[in-house]
Amino acid sequence: MLGMIMDYPLTITCLLERARRLYAGKEIATKTEGGRHCYRYADLYERVCRLANALRELGVRPGDRVGTFAWNTYRHLEVYFAVPCSGAVVHTLNVRLGGDQLAYVIGHAANRVLFVDESLLPLLEPLREQLPTVRAYVVMGDGPLPDTPLRPVLRYEDLLAAASPAYAWPTLDERSACGMCYTSGTTGHPKGVVYSHRGMYLHSLMLTSADVMAICERDVVLPVVPMFHANCWGLPYAAAMVGAKQVFAGRFTQPPDLARLLQDEQVTLTSGVPTIWISLLPYLQEHPHDLSRIRMIVSGGSAVPPSLFTAYDALGLRIVHAWGMTEMSPVGVLGHLRSDMLGWRPDEQLGTRAKQGYPVPVVEVRAVDDQGREVPWDGRSLGELQVRGPCVTSGYYEDERSAAAFDDGWFRTGDVASIDAHGYIQIADRVKDLVKSGGEWISSVDLESAIMGHPKVLEAAVIAVPHERWQERPLACVVPRPEAKGSLTAEEIVDYLRPRFPRWWLPDAVVFLDAMPKTGVGKFDKKALRAHFRDFQLA
Amino acid sequence: MLGMIMDYPLTITCLLERARRLYAGKEIATKTEGGRHCYRYADLYERVCRLANALRELGVRPGDRVGTFAWNTYRHLEVYFAVPCSGAVVHTLNVRLGGDQLAYVIGHAANRVLFVDESLLPLLEPLREQLPTVRAYVVMGDGPLPDTPLRPVLRYEDLLAAASPAYAWPTLDERSACGMCYTSGTTGHPKGVVYSHRGMYLHSLMLTSADVMAICERDVVLPVVPMFHANCWGLPYAAAMVGAKQVFAGRFTQPPDLARLLQDEQVTLTSGVPTIWISLLPYLQEHPHDLSRIRMIVSGGSAVPPSLFTAYDALGLRIVHAWGMTEMSPVGVLGHLRSDMLGWRPDEQLGTRAKQGYPVPVVEVRAVDDQGREVPWDGRSLGELQVRGPCVTSGYYEDERSAAAFDDGWFRTGDVASIDAHGYIQIADRVKDLVKSGGEWISSVDLESAIMGHPKVLEAAVIAVPHERWQERPLACVVPRPEAKGSLTAEEIVDYLRPRFPRWWLPDAVVFLDAMPKTGVGKFDKKALRAHFRDFQLA
Repeated sequence: MLGMIMDYPLTITCLLERARRLYAGKEIATKTEGGRHCYRYADLYERVCRLANALRELGVRPGDRVGTFAWNTYRHLEVYFAVPCSGAVVHTLNVRLGGDQLAYVIGHAANRVLFVDESLLPLLEPLREQLPTVRAYVVMGDGPLPDTPLRPVLRYEDLLAAASPAYAWPTLDERSACGMCYTSGTTGHPKGVVYSHRGMYLHSLMLTSADVMAICERDVVLPVVPMFHANCWGLPYAAAMVGAKQVFAGRFTQPPDLARLLQDEQVTLTSGVPTIWISLLPYLQEHPHDLSRIRMIVSGGSAVPPSLFTAYDALGLRIVHAWGMTEMSPVGVLGHLRSDMLGWRPDEQLGTRAKQGYPVPVVEVRAVDDQGREVPWDGRSLGELQVRGPCVTSGYYEDERSAAAFDDGWFRTGDVASIDAHGYIQIADRVKDLVKSGGEWISSVDLESAIMGHPKVLEAAVIAVPHERWQERPLACVVPRPEAKGSLTAEEIVDYLRPRFPRWWLPDAVVFLDAMPKTGVGKFDKKALRAHFRDFQLA
Repeated sequence: MLGMIMDYPLTITCLLERARRLYAGKEIATKTEGGRHCYRYADLYERVCRLANALRELGVRPGDRVGTFAWNTYRHLEVYFAVPCSGAVVHTLNVRLGGDQLAYVIGHAANRVLFVDESLLPLLEPLREQLPTVRAYVVMGDGPLPDTPLRPVLRYEDLLAAASPAYAWPTLDERSACGMCYTSGTTGHPKGVVYSHRGMYLHSLMLTSADVMAICERDVVLPVVPMFHANCWGLPYAAAMVGAKQVFAGRFTQPPDLARLLQDEQVTLTSGVPTIWISLLPYLQEHPHDLSRIRMIVSGGSAVPPSLFTAYDALGLRIVHAWGMTEMSPVGVLGHLRSDMLGWRPDEQLGTRAKQGYPVPVVEVRAVDDQGREVPWDGRSLGELQVRGPCVTSGYYEDERSAAAFDDGWFRTGDVASIDAHGYIQIADRVKDLVKSGGEWISSVDLESAIMGHPKVLEAAVIAVPHERWQERPLACVVPRPEAKGSLTAEEIVDYLRPRFPRWWLPDAVVFLDAMPKTGVGKFDKKALRAHFRDFQLA
């Protein structure tokens, strides 16, 4: 017997129409070169309609892929809505990808049109001969069309000016594709994730849930995470659903710009990878800002060192740990404390906050051992983390690696984790980043987090290097704080770790770097480190 | 092009499993005869599994309807989960329905099994010859099976004790029916609404949204609204999704019991119809309780008089207006103030709080005039309120009145309302309750709310009575506060209204009643009033 409830599709169009009807007067602010752009949801809506008409003029048809190559701005937000609501698929390109990978993903997704920030044209122009699927480049900028060899090339503002502000949104199947994002694997080409309207709607509603991010109308949301990184963690859509003010930093995410923007726009919720908060911290300590409106800093993408929680706590700023994946739309777990933990000692609370968190309402988790058995939720047993839910990928776009990514309907995350009795997961490592020493596992993440607690350390990464007797042993790669450069020694690091870990976990060597190599989304690039230290000889 | 996202059904089973995995230790408390029952979600889960096995033993098959005739208790909650999660349909019967209507809905829904509170047996026993579809009665109580002529009759606790605590939940189509609830129309038999798993899942997630009820793990939720009234407004399912502590009042909802329970269980969120809060107010004023944990009192079902907001504000208790319908799963709009209203004067804020509120994320609204045109959102223009969304009914169960209930895919609520620029709706009246005087409309709700602001008035209802010249004119039916009985005059009422309304809105007559007739769900029963005053002669 079926329920008798409307067959009402869950689509991004619902969010857009809701923002227009209920929140027309709420603001969307963008930092620009030396200035600020600000308009309202009513303006967004009109320009999104114009853009949808322009897309039709450009020959974009339902299901066609439209790429963006852009920083976080109101124009990027317009593309976020106009493309999926008109039935096409917005493919956000990572501006930090290498040229060959970029050309691969544009071609693999068969992008028809690319929307490009004027400031990013130099990154795209050298690839123009490798992009046969692209039929038009649209340049997003304030000035006249710059000189560029890209062809055919159009100016975003001209397109909008020429288009009608009236558009009748099509009725969409909620399972339709709304967006794409490619994720870099350890080997081979990036893999494409194809999001659905339904998944994105559910993800948005989930982010507004009180125990998740509780995004609400009174919020001012500044995603530092790029809009090309996994739907900007879902924040732009969720903010539109509840009419939160949105703030975009453009390409200005250095500490002075960011601190100023957080203060001046009275931001209440912000999000980004730990490297952002690591680099912002010393600046805030030296240059006090009034950030008292901030109620939550969401940090995800890699593990947050416990020392970072404490340092921000001291500034009255609360970091909340989150974990997710491009393949999950992306938010999976969040590290709020629960009611029965509020009476715990501060160090116990910190221990739980430093875990990644427990599953959000639309996500199920389990950890599975080598024999395919689910491991108990005891906070100790390690297994590969697997997830499922209505926002989780069912396979990669036209990619034969899809088959290996699933286990009985669960998506294999490639992370090794424990789950405690409350459901908090703790990522021990990527499967591939574990140091396998003499048949035992050493968590590179645990070592890194501890090293980053040393007062003279800015950043640290631990990788496995080959070892004759133990197969692999840990090597610590450390970037000292500027004032400690040249004075920090390997012995200090190892002495600092000694009381915290079993003796056989201690790194066999410590190397000091001037800067940590980072991936396109700002994570520590262990692939690069491993390549660099492939032939490293342990003493 | 379809998205590549898991085809993961949204079901009540997800909520149940989530509660078990993440919130096993959280409490569910029920007030009992002279005591308190308290157990944990882990216990709930085990008993729900036992009950699902018992249902199978009773011959309940997927799609079968299983009735409940019960107050709010942990046992009722067990049925709320075991029936739909095992694939059957839980049909909550209104214990205040008249015998004939009760027999009608049990037969119309073809209930196979009825779960009955021991204390309610006397209401059901006289109907036993009229219930041919019922194959078993299960009595929920603490003692031995009482004497009853119902056959076959079983004891709830015996069934559970005999059943296995292991049960493998079936995979369900998310569109499957999960529940039924009948709503009383103005004429004819009650109409059956059939809920779906998907709708109930979305409704639950929506209730946890920060701008709706923000139900979260730290909450203690006490629904005063009966569990037989429109899914208890969705609270039990939403609370399970986020692991909130749940508190049930059993049949003890009189002011002294309620005040005590709210205080002792440290309730943070409670909900009920205005009559509950009207009757609780004088008790709280005379008997102070520590209700400082309450963050929200949700009031819905009929309009909240502005004076009630103010009186509760004075106690430090915040009433939030809500509106919905059985046909909407049921929550439709909620009356939180928005960020740009926080600087308003108190009387302006009160004016907006006294409206019903603006649409929750899964609901769209419009108001349509006599000519079928959508009226502007200007806060003045009246039209029939229409709604649509993924939790809204698509028709009544086996009922030819379904056809008239829709307008181009929108559900016709039967309410006349205005919508303001912010999207706040204000219900002027039921279409049938409007007083049509000389071609103009008079809102009975506005008059009632104003009369209830008079310090000597406890309750008031306004109905139309026939008038030779004006077709209809308003008659005010007023219940004075006990201390004003006999001393309050019609002139006082009309004088009180005079500065607030156009002269032609003023009631032509005022009658005083000892008590207000109420419907099965506690609303003022205007049908009864209209019948009683059908031949009333205006002076």
